[in-house]
Amino acid sequence: TIAAPAIAQSQPEIKWRLASSFPKSLDTIYGGAETIAQRVSAATGGKFQIRVFAAGEIVPGLQVLDAVQAGTVEMGHTAMYYYVGKDPTFAFESTIPFGLNTRQHLAWLNQGGGNALIADFLKDYNIVSFSAGQTGAQMGGWYRKEIKTPADLTGLKMRIGGLAGQVLAKLGGVPQQIPGGDIYPALEKGTIDAAEWVGPYDDEKLGFYKVAKYYYYPGWWEGGLNLSAIVNQAQLETLPKEYRAILEAACHEATVTMMSKYDAQNPIALKKLIGSGALLRPFSREILQAAHKAAYALYDELAQTNPKWKKIYEPWKAFRDDQYLWFRVAETTFDNFTFTAGSQRAQ
Amino acid sequence: TIAAPAIAQSQPEIKWRLASSFPKSLDTIYGGAETIAQRVSAATGGKFQIRVFAAGEIVPGLQVLDAVQAGTVEMGHTAMYYYVGKDPTFAFESTIPFGLNTRQHLAWLNQGGGNALIADFLKDYNIVSFSAGQTGAQMGGWYRKEIKTPADLTGLKMRIGGLAGQVLAKLGGVPQQIPGGDIYPALEKGTIDAAEWVGPYDDEKLGFYKVAKYYYYPGWWEGGLNLSAIVNQAQLETLPKEYRAILEAACHEATVTMMSKYDAQNPIALKKLIGSGALLRPFSREILQAAHKAAYALYDELAQTNPKWKKIYEPWKAFRDDQYLWFRVAETTFDNFTFTAGSQRAQ
Repeated sequence: TIAAPAIAQSQPEIKWRLASSFPKSLDTIYGGAETIAQRVSAATGGKFQIRVFAAGEIVPGLQVLDAVQAGTVEMGHTAMYYYVGKDPTFAFESTIPFGLNTRQHLAWLNQGGGNALIADFLKDYNIVSFSAGQTGAQMGGWYRKEIKTPADLTGLKMRIGGLAGQVLAKLGGVPQQIPGGDIYPALEKGTIDAAEWVGPYDDEKLGFYKVAKYYYYPGWWEGGLNLSAIVNQAQLETLPKEYRAILEAACHEATVTMMSKYDAQNPIALKKLIGSGALLRPFSREILQAAHKAAYALYDELAQTNPKWKKIYEPWKAFRDDQYLWFRVAETTFDNFTFTAGSQRAQ
Repeated sequence: TIAAPAIAQSQPEIKWRLASSFPKSLDTIYGGAETIAQRVSAATGGKFQIRVFAAGEIVPGLQVLDAVQAGTVEMGHTAMYYYVGKDPTFAFESTIPFGLNTRQHLAWLNQGGGNALIADFLKDYNIVSFSAGQTGAQMGGWYRKEIKTPADLTGLKMRIGGLAGQVLAKLGGVPQQIPGGDIYPALEKGTIDAAEWVGPYDDEKLGFYKVAKYYYYPGWWEGGLNLSAIVNQAQLETLPKEYRAILEAACHEATVTMMSKYDAQNPIALKKLIGSGALLRPFSREILQAAHKAAYALYDELAQTNPKWKKIYEPWKAFRDDQYLWFRVAETTFDNFTFTAGSQRAQ
């Protein structure tokens, strides 16, 4: 029922600038910010406008956090593990190697205490963050030559994000941090031997298969990458509460939309990549075990030297243990039976 | 930046009634409607109010579709497979046995053409539906005695939802459709031999372990149940476009929130249930294979007799095949390695 008369109310016109860490060409991950901007505009009749700027338009892709912290832009869309150079604790919001899968990570953030721990950590940076996008489990990247044992990682120059680079370094590799748009030329020139980005849909666009044909899985460092919509705290406080409520809902929508888009597009792109000559390879159990050991050794070291890391790592680890046990009951048994039964029928 | 002066604009006050298929006591699944109502109110400064009524308050839990179709209430929150008696095609929006897992189902709905196919199907019912809640993969339910082979299903009277009941019937069982709040007394009195609801968090509250101690997994009929926010089409058309935009974003939020809540709470509840004497059992491969065969035989029969079913089933099946192949690459290999490696460390 509609109650007449309508009440006149004034809401301010607000225009924000959002700096994305991603290039427009990567429509899925860049699109997270567009999903937010479009929903916020539609929900406010165009009164709250967020203009999205691609990586490099206002600031480089890896400087989005700094720009939001300084108030150069009101808002950003980024992966927080880009900022592990400031503090490794940033990685928890994105994902850590051999950590949680997509749903487990969302559960930790939204219902397992993760968001509160992260909000507390981000206070020092004058930033409020909202979960806004998910890639799903990623691929293990593109390699010029086969990687069969941990020894093959020695001296390997690889573009790899976040803490995974530190794990690779423990295994003798040489990690490089390069924004998405700059990876291909580095791989083509041979500045690097290997590169990981996200998964088949983006990777096909970026054309890595042309210059490094071995395509490994799984991306053990990213069981589910959470993207973040970050807002300058002082700017967030200027928003009417209705606009903030709309912004929060739009960020959740960006999570669902990006996750579904990657999930729907990745299989199609993977088939194309294989048709174009990409050679699909699983990481050996030996490599996974060595990397797993190195990752948790790193986490334990960090817990001894960095109190901010420790404050999040300990409850995260307890949450993780419960998640692993539970997902092995209903989720994994459903997946492992149906995926095989289904593909046998399809053959 | 805030541009002054503020513009005065009037938006109508709207009050809707929402009938839920669920009792208030099941806070996770019932909470999906509350998430929507709270977000819509906050985003409109209280001008668009959705009042949530639990199952039985206005209409019984399994008559929500009829109430929305008739305009008795503007809106409902339900599982569409409750209405397979009208047409089995309703099941696609919820999930079908041995179908897609949670993420795959969301991908199909949001980015794989599923929502458009369902919208077309629902036109005949004067209903528009939005994806609004997810339970994740469910458990296989509670049984008074062990179920080891397909022969043990003969004559089994079981509360089981949607098409799964028809699959059980093909295997010799006797399916019953009973709303969540009425299952316990039926199981206690022995009116039924077994019952499935969702998973540990709800099942513990409902107390099934007290009257049927064998707890099977996985719920092969629900790899990921999608809940639906359904709106009477004529009523939806009365909404200002801003309110509709807010409603849509709030439904996506309900999906993330419910999924995360189940994922976070299920492991804790499962441990409690085992501590209370529940006996966890996997379905045998023999039972899964028999049920899988019966399910797809049913789907093929429906495709021959029901053109509406066929119109959705064929593109759904093609989408499914791609999803199974893709998830076996990055997702399953990540899960299967980390869940085991992690739990070995935890022991």
